[in-house]
Amino acid sequence: MSLLVTGSIGIDTVETPYGKRQDVIGGSAVYFAYAASFFTPVRLVGVVGEDCQVDFARLFAGRPVDLAGLERRAGSKTFRWHGSYVQDMNQAVSIQTQLNVLAERAPRIPEGFCASPFVFLANTHPVLQQQMLDCLQLPRLVVADTMNLWIQTERKELLNLLKRIGGLVLNDGEARLLTEKNNLIEAARQVLDMGPRFVVIKKGEHGCLMCSGGQTFVLPAFPADRVVDPTGAGDSFAGGMMGYLATQDDFSAAALKRALALGTVVASYTISDFSLSGLQGITRGDIDRRCEQFQAAMKF
Amino acid sequence: MSLLVTGSIGIDTVETPYGKRQDVIGGSAVYFAYAASFFTPVRLVGVVGEDCQVDFARLFAGRPVDLAGLERRAGSKTFRWHGSYVQDMNQAVSIQTQLNVLAERAPRIPEGFCASPFVFLANTHPVLQQQMLDCLQLPRLVVADTMNLWIQTERKELLNLLKRIGGLVLNDGEARLLTEKNNLIEAARQVLDMGPRFVVIKKGEHGCLMCSGGQTFVLPAFPADRVVDPTGAGDSFAGGMMGYLATQDDFSAAALKRALALGTVVASYTISDFSLSGLQGITRGDIDRRCEQFQAAMKF
Repeated sequence: MSLLVTGSIGIDTVETPYGKRQDVIGGSAVYFAYAASFFTPVRLVGVVGEDCQVDFARLFAGRPVDLAGLERRAGSKTFRWHGSYVQDMNQAVSIQTQLNVLAERAPRIPEGFCASPFVFLANTHPVLQQQMLDCLQLPRLVVADTMNLWIQTERKELLNLLKRIGGLVLNDGEARLLTEKNNLIEAARQVLDMGPRFVVIKKGEHGCLMCSGGQTFVLPAFPADRVVDPTGAGDSFAGGMMGYLATQDDFSAAALKRALALGTVVASYTISDFSLSGLQGITRGDIDRRCEQFQAAMKF
Repeated sequence: MSLLVTGSIGIDTVETPYGKRQDVIGGSAVYFAYAASFFTPVRLVGVVGEDCQVDFARLFAGRPVDLAGLERRAGSKTFRWHGSYVQDMNQAVSIQTQLNVLAERAPRIPEGFCASPFVFLANTHPVLQQQMLDCLQLPRLVVADTMNLWIQTERKELLNLLKRIGGLVLNDGEARLLTEKNNLIEAARQVLDMGPRFVVIKKGEHGCLMCSGGQTFVLPAFPADRVVDPTGAGDSFAGGMMGYLATQDDFSAAALKRALALGTVVASYTISDFSLSGLQGITRGDIDRRCEQFQAAMKF
């Protein structure tokens, strides 16, 4: 079933121990959409400025990504990010961030997208995330991401959002900040008390954990011997996870667990090259085969 | 089959967010021996000073731990460590370390222990580790631990040791230091080139990975919601792992994988309380049941 994603579209400059790429496509919605499109049709909602040279139709050629919600706004400039992983592959240092069009009004969700059954609200201001929700008609599952900035500055609005979503995806530092619990299982359980039916805590190269109901699920990262560029790993993880869930009839523990494993595997392709290169040229079959390898690497 | 361990026996003072314990039993050989004794008979080789008040026979009462290699040395003082996890449960701050008897000559391996088929050389000077090896008659499997200090100051002797052992257990920081590889899979493969047939990299709360032959195995930590005192986690992990391997006919990938899982589970009991309290009172049945829970928490 259709999966709507709203999030950033950006032009990135990225430096890692493997080199530097200037002005490549990035942004949470782009990584998410590409990753999810291996599983289900995706509806992308995002905004770029008139300076954006990217041919999105070509970027997503052959992939089931509907670009009707992509706005190219006259008079505005595209979001840009310049980051470096040269010192630490687990933590980007932001050299420059130009919000540009992201600091303006949010893009409009096209009429035809409002009944999307599955929705992912990538990280942005929690008021904007709630405005997006207001435009939607009874989605089956809404999952959101967030970040330190909103936890620290917009806690009340974030807590309002949490009451309205089915799942929250966040990283370990954010989970600790949100709950003031150091132990991640305790933190996850406290997030569940805030509203969501499930919470996924991403730990970068250390994998992820999920709590839902009384269940706890843990996964290591896929054991990758070549990490070229970690940019987009978390968004690709969420894309793979949501893409798979959008093909499922229920959100049972079993479905959520397989979704996390597939998200982990898709992210392992993303980080194997710069920008979208690691995802371009792979197939659902490749993902499923690597998922079996992943399973074998943990089996005892 | 019998499993010999040589390592430290210490009197610890430990501070964690859950409180402080003064002058409790600790040391790598003690944690290792207790953990391994759930699986196989253990032979403990270590030395304390005449100041040591611990009744070891009582400490290990009911457990198959042979204390014939435990030396109480007149005129010497017991190793003491005072550490704090108050700021960071993943990294102890050493407030005071008194090597005392550990800075003197090593304890002697009793004649009757020299034919032990399984041997664990806990972290100590690599020359001492090799001297221990010289006393042993063709063990089936020798596994060693090491630390930053020896990697930095005794690299040549450590490399000599690595040529003589079947397995190396070390943590992520040590693996990176030893190999100058940031990626842990690359680091593990490089350790294999130095001699051991398998290498286990411990990542604390993030689990572990193992490389052996062409295989890579990854495990998260057991999802524990109450970590009281991380002291001894790594030694208990190694004890559970080696204890299980000592009951196996081969060191196949399957045996090594189950050994790692059992080590992970035993360590989860250790960290649930101070000193040995988390291990006291549990049974092999408890370990096996938690191992099944662990398996379920990763299954997809």
